[in-house]
Amino acid sequence: MKILVIHGPNLNLLGKREADIYGTKTLDEINTMLKQLAKDLNVEIDVRQSNHEGEIVDIIQKSKNYDALVINPAAYTHTSVAIRDAIAAVEIPAVEVHLSNIYKREEFRHTSLIAPVAYGQISGFGDESYLLGLRAAVSITYAKKSTS
Amino acid sequence: MKILVIHGPNLNLLGKREADIYGTKTLDEINTMLKQLAKDLNVEIDVRQSNHEGEIVDIIQKSKNYDALVINPAAYTHTSVAIRDAIAAVEIPAVEVHLSNIYKREEFRHTSLIAPVAYGQISGFGDESYLLGLRAAVSITYAKKSTS
Amino acid sequence: MKILVIHGPNLNLLGKREADIYGTKTLDEINTMLKQLAKDLNVEIDVRQSNHEGEIVDIIQKSKNYDALVINPAAYTHTSVAIRDAIAAVEIPAVEVHLSNIYKREEFRHTSLIAPVAYGQISGFGDESYLLGLRAAVSITYAKKSTS
Amino acid sequence: MKILVIHGPNLNLLGKREADIYGTKTLDEINTMLKQLAKDLNVEIDVRQSNHEGEIVDIIQKSKNYDALVINPAAYTHTSVAIRDAIAAVEIPAVEVHLSNIYKREEFRHTSLIAPVAYGQISGFGDESYLLGLRAAVSITYAKKSTS
Amino acid sequence: MKILVIHGPNLNLLGKREADIYGTKTLDEINTMLKQLAKDLNVEIDVRQSNHEGEIVDIIQKSKNYDALVINPAAYTHTSVAIRDAIAAVEIPAVEVHLSNIYKREEFRHTSLIAPVAYGQISGFGDESYLLGLRAAVSITYAKKSTS
Amino acid sequence: MKILVIHGPNLNLLGKREADIYGTKTLDEINTMLKQLAKDLNVEIDVRQSNHEGEIVDIIQKSKNYDALVINPAAYTHTSVAIRDAIAAVEIPAVEVHLSNIYKREEFRHTSLIAPVAYGQISGFGDESYLLGLRAAVSITYAKKSTS
Amino acid sequence: MKILVIHGPNLNLLGKREADIYGTKTLDEINTMLKQLAKDLNVEIDVRQSNHEGEIVDIIQKSKNYDALVINPAAYTHTSVAIRDAIAAVEIPAVEVHLSNIYKREEFRHTSLIAPVAYGQISGFGDESYLLGLRAAVSITYAKKSTS
Amino acid sequence: MKILVIHGPNLNLLGKREADIYGTKTLDEINTMLKQLAKDLNVEIDVRQSNHEGEIVDIIQKSKNYDALVINPAAYTHTSVAIRDAIAAVEIPAVEVHLSNIYKREEFRHTSLIAPVAYGQISGFGDESYLLGLRAAVSITYAKKSTS
Amino acid sequence: MKILVIHGPNLNLLGKREADIYGTKTLDEINTMLKQLAKDLNVEIDVRQSNHEGEIVDIIQKSKNYDALVINPAAYTHTSVAIRDAIAAVEIPAVEVHLSNIYKREEFRHTSLIAPVAYGQISGFGDESYLLGLRAAVSITYAKKSTS
Amino acid sequence: MKILVIHGPNLNLLGKREADIYGTKTLDEINTMLKQLAKDLNVEIDVRQSNHEGEIVDIIQKSKNYDALVINPAAYTHTSVAIRDAIAAVEIPAVEVHLSNIYKREEFRHTSLIAPVAYGQISGFGDESYLLGLRAAVSITYAKKSTS
Amino acid sequence: MKILVIHGPNLNLLGKREADIYGTKTLDEINTMLKQLAKDLNVEIDVRQSNHEGEIVDIIQKSKNYDALVINPAAYTHTSVAIRDAIAAVEIPAVEVHLSNIYKREEFRHTSLIAPVAYGQISGFGDESYLLGLRAAVSITYAKKSTS
Amino acid sequence: MKILVIHGPNLNLLGKREADIYGTKTLDEINTMLKQLAKDLNVEIDVRQSNHEGEIVDIIQKSKNYDALVINPAAYTHTSVAIRDAIAAVEIPAVEVHLSNIYKREEFRHTSLIAPVAYGQISGFGDESYLLGLRAAVSITYAKKSTS
Repeated sequence: MKILVIHGPNLNLLGKREADIYGTKTLDEINTMLKQLAKDLNVEIDVRQSNHEGEIVDIIQKSKNYDALVINPAAYTHTSVAIRDAIAAVEIPAVEVHLSNIYKREEFRHTSLIAPVAYGQISGFGDESYLLGLRAAVSITYAKKSTS
Repeated sequence: MKILVIHGPNLNLLGKREADIYGTKTLDEINTMLKQLAKDLNVEIDVRQSNHEGEIVDIIQKSKNYDALVINPAAYTHTSVAIRDAIAAVEIPAVEVHLSNIYKREEFRHTSLIAPVAYGQISGFGDESYLLGLRAAVSITYAKKSTS
Repeated sequence: MKILVIHGPNLNLLGKREADIYGTKTLDEINTMLKQLAKDLNVEIDVRQSNHEGEIVDIIQKSKNYDALVINPAAYTHTSVAIRDAIAAVEIPAVEVHLSNIYKREEFRHTSLIAPVAYGQISGFGDESYLLGLRAAVSITYAKKSTS
Repeated sequence: MKILVIHGPNLNLLGKREADIYGTKTLDEINTMLKQLAKDLNVEIDVRQSNHEGEIVDIIQKSKNYDALVINPAAYTHTSVAIRDAIAAVEIPAVEVHLSNIYKREEFRHTSLIAPVAYGQISGFGDESYLLGLRAAVSITYAKKSTS
Repeated sequence: MKILVIHGPNLNLLGKREADIYGTKTLDEINTMLKQLAKDLNVEIDVRQSNHEGEIVDIIQKSKNYDALVINPAAYTHTSVAIRDAIAAVEIPAVEVHLSNIYKREEFRHTSLIAPVAYGQISGFGDESYLLGLRAAVSITYAKKSTS
Repeated sequence: MKILVIHGPNLNLLGKREADIYGTKTLDEINTMLKQLAKDLNVEIDVRQSNHEGEIVDIIQKSKNYDALVINPAAYTHTSVAIRDAIAAVEIPAVEVHLSNIYKREEFRHTSLIAPVAYGQISGFGDESYLLGLRAAVSITYAKKSTS
Repeated sequence: MKILVIHGPNLNLLGKREADIYGTKTLDEINTMLKQLAKDLNVEIDVRQSNHEGEIVDIIQKSKNYDALVINPAAYTHTSVAIRDAIAAVEIPAVEVHLSNIYKREEFRHTSLIAPVAYGQISGFGDESYLLGLRAAVSITYAKKSTS
Repeated sequence: MKILVIHGPNLNLLGKREADIYGTKTLDEINTMLKQLAKDLNVEIDVRQSNHEGEIVDIIQKSKNYDALVINPAAYTHTSVAIRDAIAAVEIPAVEVHLSNIYKREEFRHTSLIAPVAYGQISGFGDESYLLGLRAAVSITYAKKSTS
Repeated sequence: MKILVIHGPNLNLLGKREADIYGTKTLDEINTMLKQLAKDLNVEIDVRQSNHEGEIVDIIQKSKNYDALVINPAAYTHTSVAIRDAIAAVEIPAVEVHLSNIYKREEFRHTSLIAPVAYGQISGFGDESYLLGLRAAVSITYAKKSTS
Repeated sequence: MKILVIHGPNLNLLGKREADIYGTKTLDEINTMLKQLAKDLNVEIDVRQSNHEGEIVDIIQKSKNYDALVINPAAYTHTSVAIRDAIAAVEIPAVEVHLSNIYKREEFRHTSLIAPVAYGQISGFGDESYLLGLRAAVSITYAKKSTS
Repeated sequence: MKILVIHGPNLNLLGKREADIYGTKTLDEINTMLKQLAKDLNVEIDVRQSNHEGEIVDIIQKSKNYDALVINPAAYTHTSVAIRDAIAAVEIPAVEVHLSNIYKREEFRHTSLIAPVAYGQISGFGDESYLLGLRAAVSITYAKKSTS
Repeated sequence: MKILVIHGPNLNLLGKREADIYGTKTLDEINTMLKQLAKDLNVEIDVRQSNHEGEIVDIIQKSKNYDALVINPAAYTHTSVAIRDAIAAVEIPAVEVHLSNIYKREEFRHTSLIAPVAYGQISGFGDESYLLGLRAAVSITYAKKSTS
């Protein structure tokens, strides 16, 4: 089982700035945690980060060898139909994760263009959101495999 | 560590009807899964279900001996300021869970009155949403205890 | 054939107040008329009234021995997703009735959360709305039985 | 007692197309059912159909010898202030009927310009809507006569 | 100088019903007043009434021998892009008149699709609105002739 | 018969600027035309202009010796509840006039806070709007006197 | 003179939590203050609290022996048509009170479904809101008695 | 193969007025171009124009011998549910065409009630829109025939 | 303790017009009642009225010797950011009062620009609103003094 | 004559996924069809595809040697002001094409930011949309050349 | 070169209150800075402040001897059509300045009625906004003079 | 002191097209002016331009050695949450500049996603906007340095 984790724009700054909103862990630390959990759950993961909407579309399009996506679309959550369409086009289930509780923030962050094409959404648990997202992705994949 | 799980209105019908939206597991089966996971995570859980908004408010008000809530407010997600105010009034972190991906359903289900006072939200993973919710609640509580 | 008639909040005051909006018949008189018509149509009816949203949800959930519901959700027409979900969850057709023409009243009464899950809606004919609703419920049930 | 039944635009196609929305009965069959019921209820009815908004206005204006109208304004329900004004101008009570449950369909069909000037509205019972509408019209007329 | 007066739908009922909104004068009486004033102002007028949107479009299209239009679009004020387009297409200035003050009535009557293509609008003076409209039309025409 | 004409803010600049919107006549020239027509119609008029909302409220409050008001509220049309309340408070009918067709201009000019309390509205005929407004005011007053 | 004071959902927690919003007095302390003032004003009061919408409807329906209601609907202010309808149905004047200034809080708290059927509203003065509300209720009752 | 071309209201004025918006070709010239292209493509076409909504509904209802419709609903694009319902009711694919780019014009012209029931839409190419529309209609019909 | 009472536009007409909305007491009578109550409560009051928004801003700016304001902003409630900013700028608590229940009136009167900067709001009790407002102002001031 | 065809994001997946929405032809097949038609029409075409908004902006900016653009902006239709501004900045007419009928899909797809700066729009004819778009582009260019 | 600086309502309180929003400089200090810069730039300036909308209109109307305006409309930014119309009426370019960043504040402060008639807008730089505004005004004037 | 100037999409075309909106200076000429002013003000500047949202995010993220940003986000002003988040994430003050007065243009250009995280905004002064922006950036930096 292989899972692809995609970090959206500005997440490369994690742990360096605005720790009150996004927590104190760096992206590298989160990736290490994810890899540890992946090992525990006996799955492979790959991790990508990009600030470019088009690049994220490219990454999603090329994900066909993965069983599931875990994606934090960050700012593109609210503005990118292109990423939405890419997720809808590939047949891999996508788990949408957010570090902060987007429903506690500015009005425009309450609407996700990604959610209606995602399998499910996890929001607000800080870096734990990623771990829960990985578990969810693994669980979905097992369920799918057991029914096929 | 003690966690209270609250199931909102109509969830007592789970597994009996509309399986295409809510899955085939009954509420009892979900509770059994939750208890099993609680045991694995070494926490105690109690479980309550009610179709009555006021009763859910009562339950939340009396939850002060718990470390966290896992709540699926179901229909009251979109209409109950009273449950929102009860969650805001007690000092226990609440994890909001939904079986279905509420962002794939009718427009009025896209807005949660509970989300802005919840710690975080998990939506769309079927009965797995509850298991992830329990893990999240446990994780929050550990984090809180380790920082206090 | 058995039909359940549910009267929503404040309908127990019928005929006692605001006769200009709701007419001069008491709820008892309406129930008597309904029972008379039921007899004429050769069906059994039961009647329930409650001011409590949760109680109405309970009643609907327990209605599986009935062939159809006739429901005047009154104030909950415009605010209750829980009653909507209960009607959608049980497999019994529901006829929504209103004494007053809700489209002649305040803006917020023009939207029914119940209508999209009801079989049909009858509004504005005073106590006659109930009688028409009962006829509709009987007619739906006969049609269903004849095609099964 | 004389009642005028008015069928709005495209209802002449009934039973020929889109049977899933509007049912399988033709307009002629519905008219026959209406006439049978009228006979049972001991009232006279006349029936008109038009695809033209202006013609429907003309028909309503000339209805002064009738005791009540039963009207299915169809598409004009949502767009015709002229038909609304015609109904408001004549002093005959109008019963608005719809074959389909308009609240289950496209957003723009949820608003009726006619409802606020109609006596009451019946929606969603297929051809039974017309029969209930005729009964309602007869009941209104009797009530009016008994109080005058 | 020739001016065409167009009365929209339901205005043929004037003076016969809803006198509290539209006044007690019949359309014939208003036309007589208009003709008297036309005579005083030394202009010719023709008068048309129709309940049909398409017919009013036809009438406007054939008005090229007139110097100006005085039009009370009545219900079509709020719903007819076709009449708006017809007025915009012919090169004759149009004076929009209303018997009642449309800004004191239902919300939907506050918006005129005709106003942005009319020369000006007169609303609320009862049958006097027509007389003022005729004066306005004459004044516009004189001004145009004097500058050409 | 005495009529008070009130010119709102910036109308003292008439004829000096933005002639394409408001015409080339100065306010003095319009007042002269109004006085000439008043003489012809055998009524007295007084004329006031102010750029101050509060001053216009004062003027309206002190108008009890007049039979009617002709008011061009200009910019305050769209923003002044105070002027609206003053007009509603005094018992004198008010004719609202506008030089330009406000429905051809910016969106925010399409809504008049004054119109619902005015007797009627005349918009778009340039300085002729005032003359029509004066005629309307005289006509209303005669009608009122003849019925009292 | 008898007055009924109704405290809505979560008000039983007063003084125990969120003192920055609702103040430090407990509900018992507020009730004691109310009773003291009632004594000073020479009126009898009864006090009820409930977290259940339906129960509050029941309480209001049974209030016919009281001269006035003082009600803090709390969360139900913004969501309960049932309580609104109950207040409208009974003939007793209702004074709506709020501890916090609801216009300084979240957008959804700015709209009260109760206000249009209440006699008046008092908001923002902490526990003083109740005392002012009681005074208002007494004053209304005296005024009513003196005019009857 | 037979195709019906329907021109909506005011299109009979084409080439005579407002050439800046709609171009300089008359409707006859456009029809001649259409017939020439039809000949080239080896299909038969018939052409109808009407200013009457109801008449256009009648025409569509009687189009069952045609393989496709090419319709420029003009003003009725934005206001006619009746034409929409007629197109939905007949089983013939409809190509919606517009001379002008409706998305460059007034806000209300940006919404087409027809588009959701049309096969496709062509807008903005002047009389070329019709030619492209005819090609589209022919292409759809060939595709349909080849798959049946 | 000194309190300033400010009456907004058109309140100088109180008791003279529209008694059904605003009551029969004149402003002088209300001021007399206020002074009597002030005496009873052992505070000094000054009273100002103005129809001018700018003047009310001036008055508020010069109120630094007062302990609190009681202000009925009347029409400016809904339109004046300047008065809102003046209240926010001075450090004196302001009690907003309204004679009529503004939530029972036109839609635009339901929104107060002043409320979010006021200490609290009292609406709907007629002249009693002022007396309650004065009591509230006194109570706030005592509370502030006792905590400083 | 040279025409540039631009395919927006995710169109490189055409024919591989979601064939029910976008058809079964691959982008290569569509490009082959386009080149064949270009040859028939005696024009040169170049074709570009990108998933990157900025890259599409770059491509448009460098298109000055082309006579026209045919662009399917796909997801960027609804979100890209940058592409809109690029099209407006270059002086080459742009034909906007869509495979699916965007007016039959999700609400947010009904609004095109590109349409107001495009020459015209073609939507809903599957791969035929491109062929019609190419014809439209050629026709526009001929018209422009013949008038210059 | 002469430039007029206009300070709107409540700006006379600058530096005395709410220093966190508006800074600690008094209006006199800002004016001194402006005069110093004016001297450096070799232009004359005059400065006016008013809390009265009408007075600001008067000032603008009398500004014809100035080359440009620098105006901070403060609260009237969001509510005054009268000031907007005055600026549009005079032919002098106006530079709109704001001390605070109005886009970081309450929703209603995000919309400026003045901006569409101003030459440009400067917002958020505290007292530096005025200095930049003066430079902008001088630059505009030089540009205008050099092209005339 | 070092300042980074960022030019958003399509600004590389400046002076080449749409000179009526954006002026006649090329981007190079503006950069030369900026460098000259920087020299006069004794600060260093670097200049970047990109049509790619993601690239602009990258540039902002790497700006930590600069004291301030001057950014014209152009089209991304209205659509980019990613650029907003990047500006919020870095701790460098950003001055938002626009060549055209965005409040005089299309509705969608009136809303800036960047403004709430910018220090201030300058709009409408053509290339002068950049010079004012640079001055503002320098002034902010001096102020910050003097207080630290």
